[in-house]
Amino acid sequence: MHSISQYQSFIATHFSAISIEREPKNLYEPIAYILSLGGKRMRPVLTLMTAEIFNADYKKALAAATAVEVFHNFSLIHDDIMDDAPLRRGNETVHEKWDVNTGILSGDAMLILAYQYFEQYEPNIFQALAKLFSKTALEVCEGQQWDVDFEQRDDVTIPEYLKMIEYKTAVLVGAAMKMGAIVAETSDENANLIYDFGLNLGIAFQLQDDYLDAFGNPETFGKQVGGDIIENKKTYLYLKAMEFAKAAEKEQLLHLFSIQPNDNTDKVVSVKEIFNRTGASEATQEAIKNYTFKAFERLEKMHIEAEKKAILKAFGQNLMNRNV
Amino acid sequence: MHSISQYQSFIATHFSAISIEREPKNLYEPIAYILSLGGKRMRPVLTLMTAEIFNADYKKALAAATAVEVFHNFSLIHDDIMDDAPLRRGNETVHEKWDVNTGILSGDAMLILAYQYFEQYEPNIFQALAKLFSKTALEVCEGQQWDVDFEQRDDVTIPEYLKMIEYKTAVLVGAAMKMGAIVAETSDENANLIYDFGLNLGIAFQLQDDYLDAFGNPETFGKQVGGDIIENKKTYLYLKAMEFAKAAEKEQLLHLFSIQPNDNTDKVVSVKEIFNRTGASEATQEAIKNYTFKAFERLEKMHIEAEKKAILKAFGQNLMNRNV
Repeated sequence: MHSISQYQSFIATHFSAISIEREPKNLYEPIAYILSLGGKRMRPVLTLMTAEIFNADYKKALAAATAVEVFHNFSLIHDDIMDDAPLRRGNETVHEKWDVNTGILSGDAMLILAYQYFEQYEPNIFQALAKLFSKTALEVCEGQQWDVDFEQRDDVTIPEYLKMIEYKTAVLVGAAMKMGAIVAETSDENANLIYDFGLNLGIAFQLQDDYLDAFGNPETFGKQVGGDIIENKKTYLYLKAMEFAKAAEKEQLLHLFSIQPNDNTDKVVSVKEIFNRTGASEATQEAIKNYTFKAFERLEKMHIEAEKKAILKAFGQNLMNRNV
Repeated sequence: MHSISQYQSFIATHFSAISIEREPKNLYEPIAYILSLGGKRMRPVLTLMTAEIFNADYKKALAAATAVEVFHNFSLIHDDIMDDAPLRRGNETVHEKWDVNTGILSGDAMLILAYQYFEQYEPNIFQALAKLFSKTALEVCEGQQWDVDFEQRDDVTIPEYLKMIEYKTAVLVGAAMKMGAIVAETSDENANLIYDFGLNLGIAFQLQDDYLDAFGNPETFGKQVGGDIIENKKTYLYLKAMEFAKAAEKEQLLHLFSIQPNDNTDKVVSVKEIFNRTGASEATQEAIKNYTFKAFERLEKMHIEAEKKAILKAFGQNLMNRNV
């Protein structure tokens, strides 16, 4: 087994070796650009790690890992257009640096390129990977659509929110791991268990994201702390607070989530107080733990060596305790 | 063998049977909408026809034919956003009826759905279809990008223009036919010949489109005659006229393609006169014939019954002589 940072460097090397100096330039340059912006490469790391967990050489999983990361970046380009986001990883988004049409078309090409990476596998593995990929990619689109729909709604329930983050974020984590399992040709049982492991960790990860957005340490947290509150985003924290709040607090929270002051300092402080007072913060941390433990339960059932389970468990615990 | 109109009705039946009453509605309703707008369904008809040419039941090719048509409609949704087109087949475009974000995301979902239709085939055929599909889909994106790039350029050559229409339009016609051949499990030689047959017919078809846009009969031609001239589009007719024109005519044509008068009647008449006088009209008709004959040459080399060749030849001749 290799370490996370080793996997990250394998992927970085592999990515820099993908020469996308293809014509037409206006189609392929934005693709090279978004892929060059880096990020943690969490998803492809999980594909490589899972392949090794199931006793395959990580090299065999590099093409599948690349597909996952190319797909993830496709979804970032199209999501950034829809959100009209100016920045991605501290740099201009594709539609800002070029234009919306370029973002649409280069994104489309990336979705197709992702499928092409599977062509390196023999037909049975190719079909298994492509089927899982299509199912996952469609769910990511559905999750994105729910997210867009929820912005217009005041009656989003907790189960609906959990389904949305499952589709928008967690299924790709599960799929990234299952692809490593498919490439390693382990049993279907193991492959399905590792999918569920990744799926539950993915949900925990997204809830942790919601939590850190409000309560992260400004010194270490990458993004602006309180960003979700400033944008009136109905996160798990907000939905739980609305569930637990008494009439007066509820009214106060509704009011705070209807305003957009020039200086957001007071608003962020007040909302965070309500999140704490209502017990929403605690409930969110509880949910993160529960989904992480659900993932660990799946791990227990897997037919792999104890030391492999320990590696995956440590990875999950690190995610749960992260502060960035 | 069945007739074109029979194939069209098989596809219509198959399409109406695809219930896309899936959630989230805002993702799937636009898909059902664009697929309901109809059209000639030329590409899936060719897939079914080719399967039967190579002695397979057309039913075996229905899933592949559906994938081709779903992909084609995906490209229409995204192209219409890029062109800011208000109408498609006489109806509101998806981004007009909903919004740009909906057009982007529903289009993405259609591209993925197209791949899912191949899952009904066994692994070897699945991989062959998906590989051809990815290659073709990427070429269609490249063709679209060239088309966008060419709008900003004054030095587009005839070979560049031909490459652009080959990628943007013709490769999908070739691929639609080759998919029928793959499903029928004919020889690679036959499959490649039918691809080239479709590719050359596709180029002829697009050149015919350019020609009819200027010289079609307003009574029978579906679109506004002269539309390309009004929009200053550098079609094959225009590029040939610029190639053949003497200095004075060239200047006149350049001027006409720089103005956007409120009443375009005179402009269209003048440009068409130049197209005729320079020999551009004749050269375009010549090119249409040449690509059609190139297609027929491929047909001669195919190992199929004479009557099957006659059916494909008649189809090609109809395309060449069409006036709509």
